[in-house]
Amino acid sequence: MEGRPRVLTGDRPTGRLHLGHLAGSLRSRVALQDSHEVFVLVADVQGLTDHFERPDVLRRNIPEVMLDYLGAGLDPARVTFVRQSGVPELTELTVYLLNLVTVSKLRQNPTVKTEIAQKGFGDSVPAGFFIYPAAQVADVTAFGAQVVPVGEDQLPMLELTREVVRRFNGLYGPAADGTDVLVEPQALLSASPRLPGLDGQAKMGKSLGNAAYLSDPPDELRDKVMGMFTDPAHLRASDPGQVEGNPVFAYLDAFDPDPARVQALKDHYRAGGLGDVTVKRHLLDVLDAELTPIRERRATYAQDPQAVMDLLRSGTQRGREVAAHTLAQVRAALHLGEEAARL
Amino acid sequence: MEGRPRVLTGDRPTGRLHLGHLAGSLRSRVALQDSHEVFVLVADVQGLTDHFERPDVLRRNIPEVMLDYLGAGLDPARVTFVRQSGVPELTELTVYLLNLVTVSKLRQNPTVKTEIAQKGFGDSVPAGFFIYPAAQVADVTAFGAQVVPVGEDQLPMLELTREVVRRFNGLYGPAADGTDVLVEPQALLSASPRLPGLDGQAKMGKSLGNAAYLSDPPDELRDKVMGMFTDPAHLRASDPGQVEGNPVFAYLDAFDPDPARVQALKDHYRAGGLGDVTVKRHLLDVLDAELTPIRERRATYAQDPQAVMDLLRSGTQRGREVAAHTLAQVRAALHLGEEAARL
Repeated sequence: MEGRPRVLTGDRPTGRLHLGHLAGSLRSRVALQDSHEVFVLVADVQGLTDHFERPDVLRRNIPEVMLDYLGAGLDPARVTFVRQSGVPELTELTVYLLNLVTVSKLRQNPTVKTEIAQKGFGDSVPAGFFIYPAAQVADVTAFGAQVVPVGEDQLPMLELTREVVRRFNGLYGPAADGTDVLVEPQALLSASPRLPGLDGQAKMGKSLGNAAYLSDPPDELRDKVMGMFTDPAHLRASDPGQVEGNPVFAYLDAFDPDPARVQALKDHYRAGGLGDVTVKRHLLDVLDAELTPIRERRATYAQDPQAVMDLLRSGTQRGREVAAHTLAQVRAALHLGEEAARL
Repeated sequence: MEGRPRVLTGDRPTGRLHLGHLAGSLRSRVALQDSHEVFVLVADVQGLTDHFERPDVLRRNIPEVMLDYLGAGLDPARVTFVRQSGVPELTELTVYLLNLVTVSKLRQNPTVKTEIAQKGFGDSVPAGFFIYPAAQVADVTAFGAQVVPVGEDQLPMLELTREVVRRFNGLYGPAADGTDVLVEPQALLSASPRLPGLDGQAKMGKSLGNAAYLSDPPDELRDKVMGMFTDPAHLRASDPGQVEGNPVFAYLDAFDPDPARVQALKDHYRAGGLGDVTVKRHLLDVLDAELTPIRERRATYAQDPQAVMDLLRSGTQRGREVAAHTLAQVRAALHLGEEAARL
């Protein structure tokens, strides 16, 4: 894995992972592990920014998220799983880098803006939540990631990272070995559009109650798929139906390996004569084909939870060594002195 | 020292310490070391919040500030000197506590407001500077300080600390041993008013160029005192002079051990017939009496800079142990897990 470009990705362990994660990030991570050195951050400290009143939720979900990762096909022999709170160097770097980010820059961050509105924080937004883009900059740079897979909406975070890196390297110059202290990462823009919720809402999410999880048993998935929102004007099978905004077809686009077949179904649905139940049964077949190996791997790993957490523990130790190396250089650049290292 | 109430005080090492520090904080710290367990924080990480473009300034001033402390009479056998950057637990706690502080609360902080205006930051205030009251909350609570000496202007910072402590303890309950995880500190309000600058400006400061330093040689102090601003309308010795706003008398109030003598001088000055040069010569005698033992102790310690930095190193280690103990409890309260401890 060494020598390959390093990738940092991750999730806040606020709940189990769902089909949206699978389509949006998990499958591309599985593909990346062949060509890249993949670090996956289980971001419990970032999870605190909107779960500080229920930190137990994060702890309880960490084993679930790990099972979802392993079930989805992330290979522990090739991927480093890191628990964020196990690398306090990330918080240290966050505090240093906050000096290189202005308040107005944070306020302009579109994701933070949107989420402040969604969560109804208003002016009472916790400062931890407000500064989380800077904390993400610290995560990316502490691990020296060269590549960060992002969705369209996360591009401003990556641009902020690149700005901070340029400012840091410009202010403090190269490390003793002549290389830049922080690495300027590249965005790897996701090709897959965001998967809508089962109810047709733009986003699938635990708090929205419209998600199908990797860990859903087959009968629960069947109930969810058969109850999916479709075209509300498509009352009889013989009626022409609408494909746009119809989540059943969005899921087929995301998961059916045969695009020609999906196109034929769309044409048939638009013309009339294709019932919702028929399309949903096909989607269920597609999803079961996708999820069966995931369920099997997940079930195998779930038999030994201790071994799963040991993977996270050893990955965290490896991640901590990488971050500690970066921090030693950052501290030297900031004249913070050798004696300030580890106990 | 154990068992005595713990005090946290400190300074950002942005320059040598001056008469304003002596009158405002150093003398009261020296008095406290008899009855309290005094921690003195050399706050280089906080210094970065407005010196991130010149971190070398902080590093270079740390030995000077240490000599100023020791010269002023802080006894290394009783005082724990801690270099802030040597205790990364402080940054870790800062990141956690930021979740319990709202952005609007930080924006309302009067000290931050004033300093943003003074430094001309405007909307481009660095986030590190903006959040520094929360970082101070982390400093106070990581060391479990029961008492924090503050000036009038720092009371809001202490009130913020008390609010955050109450919120933290309320949200997360007591530690395993039944005690609150964070200690709610009391303010020890300074009785001494702020010492004006040599030029009569409200504040003495390095960047204002109007400071007399503990480390100034006697002839430099003499030049500074003889050049001090007085009452500009007091042209001849025989004229009546104004005492209010006259820094010479403010310094006498702060340093002359004989208040009756100061009162007599003020009466004489107001009535007329007392020349500025005469008052300044008296002030110089008073300051030399105050500073002579400080200069002597400072010079003695300055002969062994390595020993001075060793005091800081061992104090930092002791401080780190205290902070690590607090952080272990904080991490448990936040469900961040055992495995997330030290390498």
